Amino acid sequence: MTGPGSKAGVNRQVMVVRRAKGVPTPDCFQIVDSPVPQCPAGGVLLETLCAAVDPAMRGWLSEERNYMTVSDGEVMRAHGVGRVVESQDERWVPGDLAYGWLGWQRYAAVASSALLWPVDETVAPAPVWLSVLGLNGLTAWIGLNLLGRPVRGETIVVSAAAGGVGGLVGQLAAHRGLRAVGIAGGASKTELARTRLGFHAAVDYKAAAGDLGRELTRLLPDGVDIFFDNTAGPIADAVFPVLNGGARIVQCGTVAVPDWTTLPTGPRRERDILVKRLSWHGLVVFDHMARFEEAFADLKDLYRSGVLTARHDVLPGLDMAPGALGRLYDGTNNGRLMIDVGL
Amino acid sequence: MTGPGSKAGVNRQVMVVRRAKGVPTPDCFQIVDSPVPQCPAGGVLLETLCAAVDPAMRGWLSEERNYMTVSDGEVMRAHGVGRVVESQDERWVPGDLAYGWLGWQRYAAVASSALLWPVDETVAPAPVWLSVLGLNGLTAWIGLNLLGRPVRGETIVVSAAAGGVGGLVGQLAAHRGLRAVGIAGGASKTELARTRLGFHAAVDYKAAAGDLGRELTRLLPDGVDIFFDNTAGPIADAVFPVLNGGARIVQCGTVAVPDWTTLPTGPRRERDILVKRLSWHGLVVFDHMARFEEAFADLKDLYRSGVLTARHDVLPGLDMAPGALGRLYDGTNNGRLMIDVGL
Repeated sequence: MTGPGSKAGVNRQVMVVRRAKGVPTPDCFQIVDSPVPQCPAGGVLLETLCAAVDPAMRGWLSEERNYMTVSDGEVMRAHGVGRVVESQDERWVPGDLAYGWLGWQRYAAVASSALLWPVDETVAPAPVWLSVLGLNGLTAWIGLNLLGRPVRGETIVVSAAAGGVGGLVGQLAAHRGLRAVGIAGGASKTELARTRLGFHAAVDYKAAAGDLGRELTRLLPDGVDIFFDNTAGPIADAVFPVLNGGARIVQCGTVAVPDWTTLPTGPRRERDILVKRLSWHGLVVFDHMARFEEAFADLKDLYRSGVLTARHDVLPGLDMAPGALGRLYDGTNNGRLMIDVGL
Repeated sequence: MTGPGSKAGVNRQVMVVRRAKGVPTPDCFQIVDSPVPQCPAGGVLLETLCAAVDPAMRGWLSEERNYMTVSDGEVMRAHGVGRVVESQDERWVPGDLAYGWLGWQRYAAVASSALLWPVDETVAPAPVWLSVLGLNGLTAWIGLNLLGRPVRGETIVVSAAAGGVGGLVGQLAAHRGLRAVGIAGGASKTELARTRLGFHAAVDYKAAAGDLGRELTRLLPDGVDIFFDNTAGPIADAVFPVLNGGARIVQCGTVAVPDWTTLPTGPRRERDILVKRLSWHGLVVFDHMARFEEAFADLKDLYRSGVLTARHDVLPGLDMAPGALGRLYDGTNNGRLMIDVGL
């Protein structure tokens, strides 16, 4: 990370220039250099240190209806951690670190409502505020505790187990006394899940291929009580047959299905939902802001005490941003993907 | 209904003789006449007055895994209302009416645990205890109130709106201040839904055919907050696009999909569940027995005050039983289907 004042006078920004059908490709973005903006009236000017690359961004750029969107010609929306350069809001002074909607840009001139909370580097360094102490951590905590409703001794299966959210769900679940089984792609990710991310066992869906269902049946003779699903698609299809009666499904992501513009087909779920009395919930973490403070306090404790460890996959510089989303979907990222904006 | 002692000496029973793939056909059953059984030690002998015909029975006879099953060679399991003929349990005396697992048979010799609750004819006649004051009523009440979590002013869509459960959901929803829209098959059922079952509007899915989705969009410009689904399949597929963010789906039945032995395919739901933060729950009423007393008290009040009306479709005699389940799936039944066992 660079300090304030470096590369002075240039604000590199990643603009959205077209919608994506499926996973956004580099040509959906354009890198533009412009002068450093003024601090907006009543707002804050920050220098971005690191910025998130999130699966949710696919939805923001989609031609389809979504809960949030980014328009063509706008700077790509993203969470980030930044250092305050100038402030017209008395709650922020130069040098403060803040977490919020900074976007994929070196300098963010924002209304203070875009800043969600202060970042305290004595608790954890800036990148951790994009993972364990950021939306990934909140998503994992809220999905597991509020929608998953875990009971000690139950079994949870997590897809994309080595991903930014999945890896935290594994660690939180193990700490809560659950048996956690992860599904990930490739030997290194499954090993990471087993050795570092709290999972008691992990299945390589690429190696298992068509036998994933059989492999899960073998690993899970007592079935599954919570399915924390980051992938949807064929991986999820393999989990449904091993769900127990009363199981909870937390739908956190759909990364295994690259295109929803034409609704893909899959096995009908109504009968399973009825006969097994399943509860299937969509998780968008901002629906649960009332619980953020409680979640945050717990996440900070768990990070400080070493229960939760952060796994980061850091891309060096904004020039990497246009191709970054593809890495979430081709399986090459490892841990929480982010951009070191200062480089 | 006949009184005790009629057709003395003959116990007509409908036995299960083979499993069904899909909707049970008459050849799954065999009618057997045998002598009236003895009252079992510590149990009760009843003469059945009326017995239920339920969509759930398809699952009990299925070759597939289910939450409950009936084996070949057993009397078909069914709820019914019967009059106590003889009792070795001090809680029941001859002449009492009881609701419970009596089966498709004229005389039921049962352990007293098979009797779920007493029937009070001063509150309502016996058949009403199979509809408004039976499992249909409890299912509608629990599905709507506990899983649907309705808020006055919201909109609910109910499939199989003229069916035994759907018609009660419409009436309960209207009474709770919801706008209720029903989906049913044919002009007479949609008219029944509109004029008698509480629905503000009803759509004939047969007449709409491929335009059901467009028709629902037209009727529901403000979308749908609760979907009480008795059908699954293409009817449910037409409702998904009009679901609002945060909508609750209560999966109560799957009558529009006649065969689940090979899992049918349909549109994938993961993206809708995530983006619209849906909650999709399977409803099996026996999971909620802790709330039966409260539900019952409310249903009795609503029946007595005329808020809830009963719609019955009564088959005359056990000889009609083997073909009865087909009527639930071919759309010919109207209201709560049951058998008048005394005939």
